[in-house]
Amino acid sequence: MTAPTKKASVDKAARRKRFEDVFPVIAEELLGYIRGEGMPQDAVEWYEKNLYANTPGGKLNRGLSVVDSVEILKGSELGDEEYLKAAILGWCVELLQAYFLVADDIMDQSVTRRGQPCWYRQPGVGNIAINDAFMLEAAIYHLLKKHFRQQTYYVDLLELFLETTFQTELGQLIDLITAPEDSVDLNKFSLEKHHLIVVYKTAFYSFYLPVALAMRVVGITDKAAYDLALSILIPLGEYFQVQDDYLDCYGKPEHIGKIGTDILDNKCSWNINTALRYATPAQRQILDDNYGRKNPESEARVKALFSEAPISIPERYEAYEAEVYSKLQGLIGKVEEQGAGLKREVFESFLGKIYKRSK
Amino acid sequence: MTAPTKKASVDKAARRKRFEDVFPVIAEELLGYIRGEGMPQDAVEWYEKNLYANTPGGKLNRGLSVVDSVEILKGSELGDEEYLKAAILGWCVELLQAYFLVADDIMDQSVTRRGQPCWYRQPGVGNIAINDAFMLEAAIYHLLKKHFRQQTYYVDLLELFLETTFQTELGQLIDLITAPEDSVDLNKFSLEKHHLIVVYKTAFYSFYLPVALAMRVVGITDKAAYDLALSILIPLGEYFQVQDDYLDCYGKPEHIGKIGTDILDNKCSWNINTALRYATPAQRQILDDNYGRKNPESEARVKALFSEAPISIPERYEAYEAEVYSKLQGLIGKVEEQGAGLKREVFESFLGKIYKRSK
Repeated sequence: MTAPTKKASVDKAARRKRFEDVFPVIAEELLGYIRGEGMPQDAVEWYEKNLYANTPGGKLNRGLSVVDSVEILKGSELGDEEYLKAAILGWCVELLQAYFLVADDIMDQSVTRRGQPCWYRQPGVGNIAINDAFMLEAAIYHLLKKHFRQQTYYVDLLELFLETTFQTELGQLIDLITAPEDSVDLNKFSLEKHHLIVVYKTAFYSFYLPVALAMRVVGITDKAAYDLALSILIPLGEYFQVQDDYLDCYGKPEHIGKIGTDILDNKCSWNINTALRYATPAQRQILDDNYGRKNPESEARVKALFSEAPISIPERYEAYEAEVYSKLQGLIGKVEEQGAGLKREVFESFLGKIYKRSK
Repeated sequence: MTAPTKKASVDKAARRKRFEDVFPVIAEELLGYIRGEGMPQDAVEWYEKNLYANTPGGKLNRGLSVVDSVEILKGSELGDEEYLKAAILGWCVELLQAYFLVADDIMDQSVTRRGQPCWYRQPGVGNIAINDAFMLEAAIYHLLKKHFRQQTYYVDLLELFLETTFQTELGQLIDLITAPEDSVDLNKFSLEKHHLIVVYKTAFYSFYLPVALAMRVVGITDKAAYDLALSILIPLGEYFQVQDDYLDCYGKPEHIGKIGTDILDNKCSWNINTALRYATPAQRQILDDNYGRKNPESEARVKALFSEAPISIPERYEAYEAEVYSKLQGLIGKVEEQGAGLKREVFESFLGKIYKRSK
């Protein structure tokens, strides 16, 4: 490992540590609030466990990207107070994600999350996890009020979170009714459906929301700037999710940290939708007979077919990646450095982290 | 039936009808929005079913009380546009309740709601109901933005809904961990715990929220007026829930429209908490051995004990009702008719509907 790489990785760890150190502060604010409302000790302890088990512990990409974007847009290092404000918004995005994940795990009947049993599967929790998910969401608005009530952009923050929440739930709805785990019907799938699911379920909250929050904090008010950011971040988020889908099948388990189960789970992924688009009638029959079936033979049959011509997923993925990368570079090139307050670097930073990633 | 009563009941039906007629308008706004976002037809139809199955169809007391309170505070009949605004806020309270009920039914594993199978038990729904509950909540903020974005009190409406949601979820949390259906421990119960559960889980959203919304609409901004309203509506909501608990055991099924199951379900109700406060050691033993057990003999044993001295629930309920009624009358008497804009009639109307009700 060369020196600069080592330094970059130390910096990255230090940035993460600084962000993580804010979490106990906001957890204590939330617990202080409910203590002040006279909640019994067992309820306070329950909420504490809920907050700590479900909010930190992930990759924190979304939360960190709020802080990074504020720094880039501001163009200088953040003072302690500015940092705290940006980090709180970052944690609010992580709380939003925690709310979705706790609920999604119940809906998908998932077993583990981040190497632990899913929250609803932890002893004594069960369906109380539904109310716990609600309380992760409620935390967002309590924190926004406490820290941003006096800002002119307070109502914009509220609307950003509320609208993004609705969009994500719409994406989750289409996903749930298009790809139920126990009933395979590939006629419901299409690349158009995949596009909708990915944009609504992931791209808005993971890519647009963190940047839009940062833009509000630094005082950007021009609607055109938000539209421009959206026009870049939505395809960028879609690209990220297509990668995720691709790596589920073609990534190395030691890189992606899990063994992909999209084929077994009847997921409406980019791979299957691309396969359906290009499959011969005979290949289509094999997909119909084997996709989403809970046995390793069917899974292996689908996996092999994905690489066969004319489906050729790896080649098509390579072509997709080259095309979307060039398109995104074009869009980013249009970002004016003056005037509206936006900066190319915000988007370049995202694209740099994503392009040709293997994990 | 005498003529005035008949007229009153016709008026009541007409008021309800006028309010109900607004629901298809807001449902269409929500469906129009998701259609406009390019959602597939099956997702639009799913949301339509979710909205119609879970929002109208109840008693609509909370929604109607927004409209009634706006009328009383304004002191004259509402024009069409004013009526629509008040009714939309009323439906937002009903959407909030729908969100809670869809989720509560899953958490409580309930079987029916309003005479129909619970939403999560309807064909093909299952745990998708969790996301459906979220989408009922999201509807509130979409409607608030659409209809109130230009009002100075828009942010107050957002905060009222968001804070009340958190409070209700806190009440639900205490209830869930105090009285799990499958594990009876009467040591966790107390009248103080009952007070907290009732205030947080019911009184804020059912009593304070509708009146506070109405106060915002008519332009009341004085914080003292909201504090005063709260100081009356919280005990009023508690009284309502104590009645509900009492009637679960002592009401006539033909009046209350159901057969009470609080004893079987280990509910943390006013009856059991009052019984625990006054029981002799021998009576306490019987309660420990029989409360929350899923058999009719145990239920009958508890029911009989509730009426035995020194527990004497009916006598204690009568004394409680007399005391709380007099206390509430005293509080309402303090409402100034001038100045802050509040009116006694808002509270008298609630109290009149509740006092000595048998259904």
